[in-house]
Amino acid sequence: MNADMGESFGPYRMGDDRALMPYVSSANIACGMHAGDPNVMAATIDLAREHGVTIGAHPGFGDLNGFGRRRIPMTSPEIEHLVTYQIGALQALAAGRGVRVEFVKPHGALNNMAHEESDVADAVARGIRAASRDLLFVANCLSEMTRAAERAGLEVVHEAYADRRYAPDGRLLPRSAPEAVIHDPADAARQVLAMLDAGCLIAADGTRLSTPIDTFCLHADEASALEVAKGVRGALDGAGIAVVAIAGTPAGLT
Amino acid sequence: MNADMGESFGPYRMGDDRALMPYVSSANIACGMHAGDPNVMAATIDLAREHGVTIGAHPGFGDLNGFGRRRIPMTSPEIEHLVTYQIGALQALAAGRGVRVEFVKPHGALNNMAHEESDVADAVARGIRAASRDLLFVANCLSEMTRAAERAGLEVVHEAYADRRYAPDGRLLPRSAPEAVIHDPADAARQVLAMLDAGCLIAADGTRLSTPIDTFCLHADEASALEVAKGVRGALDGAGIAVVAIAGTPAGLT
Amino acid sequence: MNADMGESFGPYRMGDDRALMPYVSSANIACGMHAGDPNVMAATIDLAREHGVTIGAHPGFGDLNGFGRRRIPMTSPEIEHLVTYQIGALQALAAGRGVRVEFVKPHGALNNMAHEESDVADAVARGIRAASRDLLFVANCLSEMTRAAERAGLEVVHEAYADRRYAPDGRLLPRSAPEAVIHDPADAARQVLAMLDAGCLIAADGTRLSTPIDTFCLHADEASALEVAKGVRGALDGAGIAVVAIAGTPAGLT
Amino acid sequence: MNADMGESFGPYRMGDDRALMPYVSSANIACGMHAGDPNVMAATIDLAREHGVTIGAHPGFGDLNGFGRRRIPMTSPEIEHLVTYQIGALQALAAGRGVRVEFVKPHGALNNMAHEESDVADAVARGIRAASRDLLFVANCLSEMTRAAERAGLEVVHEAYADRRYAPDGRLLPRSAPEAVIHDPADAARQVLAMLDAGCLIAADGTRLSTPIDTFCLHADEASALEVAKGVRGALDGAGIAVVAIAGTPAGLT
Repeated sequence: MNADMGESFGPYRMGDDRALMPYVSSANIACGMHAGDPNVMAATIDLAREHGVTIGAHPGFGDLNGFGRRRIPMTSPEIEHLVTYQIGALQALAAGRGVRVEFVKPHGALNNMAHEESDVADAVARGIRAASRDLLFVANCLSEMTRAAERAGLEVVHEAYADRRYAPDGRLLPRSAPEAVIHDPADAARQVLAMLDAGCLIAADGTRLSTPIDTFCLHADEASALEVAKGVRGALDGAGIAVVAIAGTPAGLT
Repeated sequence: MNADMGESFGPYRMGDDRALMPYVSSANIACGMHAGDPNVMAATIDLAREHGVTIGAHPGFGDLNGFGRRRIPMTSPEIEHLVTYQIGALQALAAGRGVRVEFVKPHGALNNMAHEESDVADAVARGIRAASRDLLFVANCLSEMTRAAERAGLEVVHEAYADRRYAPDGRLLPRSAPEAVIHDPADAARQVLAMLDAGCLIAADGTRLSTPIDTFCLHADEASALEVAKGVRGALDGAGIAVVAIAGTPAGLT
Repeated sequence: MNADMGESFGPYRMGDDRALMPYVSSANIACGMHAGDPNVMAATIDLAREHGVTIGAHPGFGDLNGFGRRRIPMTSPEIEHLVTYQIGALQALAAGRGVRVEFVKPHGALNNMAHEESDVADAVARGIRAASRDLLFVANCLSEMTRAAERAGLEVVHEAYADRRYAPDGRLLPRSAPEAVIHDPADAARQVLAMLDAGCLIAADGTRLSTPIDTFCLHADEASALEVAKGVRGALDGAGIAVVAIAGTPAGLT
Repeated sequence: MNADMGESFGPYRMGDDRALMPYVSSANIACGMHAGDPNVMAATIDLAREHGVTIGAHPGFGDLNGFGRRRIPMTSPEIEHLVTYQIGALQALAAGRGVRVEFVKPHGALNNMAHEESDVADAVARGIRAASRDLLFVANCLSEMTRAAERAGLEVVHEAYADRRYAPDGRLLPRSAPEAVIHDPADAARQVLAMLDAGCLIAADGTRLSTPIDTFCLHADEASALEVAKGVRGALDGAGIAVVAIAGTPAGLT
């Protein structure tokens, strides 16, 4: 169970990290480009440490006004440097607080582009590897990122979304689709348990897509985020499924 | 001999790093806040490596329009995080290129504030130590930074300016003073050799101030930077004084 | 009754403009530097128009992360251009929506500096006059701004704060003081009525300071903002005091 | 003859406006988003006024690092507000200096998108009209912008490039094409005279495309800009063709 965290900026609050942190095992921390700033990052690292939650870098485009959700055309080296820069900033802040950055998961439009385009996925993978070969690459199931991670020699953590619905081709339904976001905790819990039970991704129309699933993501910026997190976590606990942190070589659902 | 480098930004050029690099032993690389961006940083690391020049982080206020030369009031933790963030970003980019960040030198207004105010100096020192205890703190001679480095357990590299003149209290003459910046290469060379010969800082009025001097700084953004660099380097070579890089425990003039 | 509005930015919400708008007569709209962006500005203009609320420009330092609350040293021409730029941006957006910008009130640190320093106040006044000589200068009672407005030939609207307490010298108590911000609607209403009744500013310690008072400001970014607004507005209505908009030559309390 | 001006930012210089200004009749001034800042804008307005050069707003995407050359997906209202905001900022600065903004020409990627996409062109046109119905829309010949201007009731100034070569469909050859930019002043002069003589656009392969041509643009950010400007202006003077400013209803080549 991972969620995006640390997306506040200066005086602006985004999400309720303090309320959500108890329900996740891993926190994807924004790195000051699409969201976050050095102070928010430091506070989020501390909050994660308090809850025994592992942290990962959540690099995005340098587009605060668009919250990293707009596709900005960049060359492969530019993407690589952008990713490495953000990871390093978080690594140093974490090191000073006795914490290690365990994984990297791209944000928003960068994630969507890396999902579909192999050259973007490769640039992200090289950007991660440049910062450290020990970083896990949290990659959408069935995306170009999983293959790019392998090419770069990075360990992959296959990620599905707890609170988003899928198209039959394995992509997320676009946010513009009415059923794209799952707001009902019970629905999210059902989707998570069904996928874990089936051992594959299940699209909104029932299509089953073969893929490992190592971690589920929750969207912290939805109003329903906290209830969905509680619902999913409760369902997993009720089903006796342990949730472990994304770190080293995870030996279970993260 | 160190100089500020990597101060270009996107389409904007600043200084002529390629021309200057052969004359320095250490490069202070801007980290994307007051100047620089991830691509400029990567290119500057590569350029330094080509010339066997060691690199340091040159963190400044997040004020591109003011080039980090305006004093921005920030709390101690904010300064600490700001410094660590920038160092980490450079460390990761450097790591990916097989290079290590050896030292840190604050930029502009942050440097001026840390020169005078012990709490700012302590915040900078803590920000450096958070990123790595092995980083050298390049600190103005006779500044609060030298004491802050000692308090933080960081090794200090005492820095004098080759191309700036000093007030009798050991501060730089403000840029508004007509003789503040030395544009004549021969004058700069004379100042450097005189200080090395006397083993102390010498102010514009002849006042001698007792301090170690471990490295000299050149300002890359002055039009005269290249000629001054050549003049000073030539004078040092002529006097048989070896210039070594800032790294590990430097065993000579850096 | 005026309040700061339009301080959201991209995905980030600040204040609840929609709830607060019915209780004010004039809205100070952030102009994209310390807060706000072109889309937020357009939406805020529309919202003000719906409620018959006049609008003013609320220019601040270009410091989003610090929300314009940090003093940034700038020259007088720089301040002048900064102010004119922001006013113009709002004027054009307003013109396109059939609305006129009636007044200007500086934000945060720029306001504090202009309160105390005559050269900053003059720079702000010149920046306003450059955009239009018809703009009213909403200036803190007893501040350098009131004199600067006169020197620039601008009409002044003397402003007191409904929800802040004053020092005996007529400045606001700093936010760090425990009683600086009034959170209790009844307290704010009492302060407003007492000042109107006495026809002067009344400090926290009871000191009376002679000054016209033309408008009262509410801080929209406090959690208590809406309740305070309702309380003050209700008290004014109860006392039979009409609240008119800041525009043209206001003929009553604005 | 128009050229992009005012593209410096803070400490960063771009182009040599002072040298180029004598050779143009109209200056497209960057408005603080893709380039420029309030101080650069004010200085550029003054410089244009000294040379009797009319000014226009040159709005672009808020992407300083990419210099407004990256396509950023935005909705039509967002584009509209972005354009109006920038025009207004320039209008107010100009008003304070006794100058009027006469025209608007979009920059970089925004211009390219508006060239091809009618909804973007319409958004730009509405953004211009919102600021003032008297502004001329300087639009690439044969682009969607010319039609959008008509739909919005704005007067069009048809623009060809003096120093860029055209594809047979009337678009500019992409900068990646080797012959895209004309660096030889004689070549540029020949292209301009040939087009004026033929009364139509002439592509690199000789294709003639029927369109009015009202003004020619020079790119100020190329190293060859000044020589090309001199060459083209000299050729026009030699041919007895008067160059007038873009303003009101221009009665000749602008």
